[in-house]
Amino acid sequence: MTAQVQIREVAPRDGLQIETPIPAEAKLHLIDALVATGVGRIEVTSFVSPRAVPALADAETIAAQLHRWPGIDFSALVAGIGGVRRALAAGMTRLEYVVSASDGHSLANVGRATEDSIALIAPIADLVHAAGGALEVIIAIAFDCPFDGPTPPERVAAIAARAISSGADSLSIADTVGTATPGRTGAVIDLVHAAAPGIDLGLHLHNTRGQSSANAWSGYVHGIRRFDSSAGGFGGCPFAPAASGNIATEELVYLFEDSGIATGVDLEATLDAARLLSRLLGKPADSNLLRAGGRLAPSSAAGR
Amino acid sequence: MTAQVQIREVAPRDGLQIETPIPAEAKLHLIDALVATGVGRIEVTSFVSPRAVPALADAETIAAQLHRWPGIDFSALVAGIGGVRRALAAGMTRLEYVVSASDGHSLANVGRATEDSIALIAPIADLVHAAGGALEVIIAIAFDCPFDGPTPPERVAAIAARAISSGADSLSIADTVGTATPGRTGAVIDLVHAAAPGIDLGLHLHNTRGQSSANAWSGYVHGIRRFDSSAGGFGGCPFAPAASGNIATEELVYLFEDSGIATGVDLEATLDAARLLSRLLGKPADSNLLRAGGRLAPSSAAGR
Repeated sequence: MTAQVQIREVAPRDGLQIETPIPAEAKLHLIDALVATGVGRIEVTSFVSPRAVPALADAETIAAQLHRWPGIDFSALVAGIGGVRRALAAGMTRLEYVVSASDGHSLANVGRATEDSIALIAPIADLVHAAGGALEVIIAIAFDCPFDGPTPPERVAAIAARAISSGADSLSIADTVGTATPGRTGAVIDLVHAAAPGIDLGLHLHNTRGQSSANAWSGYVHGIRRFDSSAGGFGGCPFAPAASGNIATEELVYLFEDSGIATGVDLEATLDAARLLSRLLGKPADSNLLRAGGRLAPSSAAGR
Repeated sequence: MTAQVQIREVAPRDGLQIETPIPAEAKLHLIDALVATGVGRIEVTSFVSPRAVPALADAETIAAQLHRWPGIDFSALVAGIGGVRRALAAGMTRLEYVVSASDGHSLANVGRATEDSIALIAPIADLVHAAGGALEVIIAIAFDCPFDGPTPPERVAAIAARAISSGADSLSIADTVGTATPGRTGAVIDLVHAAAPGIDLGLHLHNTRGQSSANAWSGYVHGIRRFDSSAGGFGGCPFAPAASGNIATEELVYLFEDSGIATGVDLEATLDAARLLSRLLGKPADSNLLRAGGRLAPSSAAGR
């Protein structure tokens, strides 16, 4: 069955970025397990400052091994021109460039105001397209900022329109600190669709306040067909160390598949990948579905 | 602002029923904290076999103290005629009677097939109405049964229609083992609405597989305006001891309030009640919102 929604697995990047660094060989083991789930897209690393994100300092090492898995659409996150040049030199041409919708977060994250980050979209798109690649702009802090408070939805829509006119090939809306709820998720999506008609629009969710499955469903109802997620729900927020991470891939797959919407991703293999990542990090996954043991298994669960 | 959705707090019943018993005085302390949240309805106990559910063996003791909180709509769960007589004798006249939609679960739970449980609705309704009360029928196992597998949605709709014709004043659909997803939730609600037009229909959700917020939102979109929840997400499933409990009241309140839908329930007071219950039970709440510290607090969260 053809997938009706597309999942981009972000565990190797968002799931690992604030963790204690693990060896490149362990990451390749993880990527292998993720490929086995059937997921077609994997965000494998980011090309950012190794001082800021030591857990992903081995981006070139990882990129050099991706030839092991032909047919998978691998991508990497970037935060500026230097990272784009590094990524392209490493042979990665599907890039995600982050623009924070709030000045407070943008300054804290990359030392630039939002406007200055937007101004980089066009030169980055030119570099990526010259290398035969594709550029996605991820609009971070699309709902609330830990510094500036609520993000005006109109600001998100305006950034979306400017990203497209600057050469972005696709967009994602990111609930970076996990504050979105389904009503606001739908409202922002509708505004972005109106500002950038026909754009390939994805949704990047965190489960910090237990809303990720509701937001995913609201996104689907509002036309979203592409979602980021992380096996086991790994991926923390540096502003809330105890908080939950990304929406768990297994819970997203279960949500859609059990609702009759094909993902192309195998649930049991995803649970295996989540267990592997849990072992590699030495900490439990924050995944209710994993704790429950997966799908309900009649008779064995009941012992009757 | 008038509440646009109504929450029934079930922590004193569903949240406690499989836990090590706590003293009646502790339960009254919990009820007091729940009343302080502004919630208008609380399911405080069940009148069932004290051998089967020792944690709620003090139902009469609790019922005798409810006069402390005038204006709150207190209710109790029952599983048969004997429990109804006990509840009415204890002065409780708002009762929830459970009918399991699968024979396997019904036999395991109350020793009767579904048909035999349905047959009791009319005599129970007569008893309750004669006492000036109101009867809700909760259709348990409305999605999947740990013994019998998937529950046919048509079976749920047929039980709903028979419950109404037998005298039930309202209904709830219960995802007892936490397997529902938003697509199936909406489909079952639509069938029940068609089978029992105009009925006051509630939704009782568990977060066993991380789907509860999605199911709540799907329920809302499909017309549901009444939801059960438990402070802190307490409330386990006896068939899956490690699994998560009820949808957490604080996550449900946040979902609706942040989506612009009034609940009449105070989020901070609900977090306080969840923390109290956590202390009373000596175990952490399974609530992402509680772990995140509640709503995002700009500046203090960011330390800037």
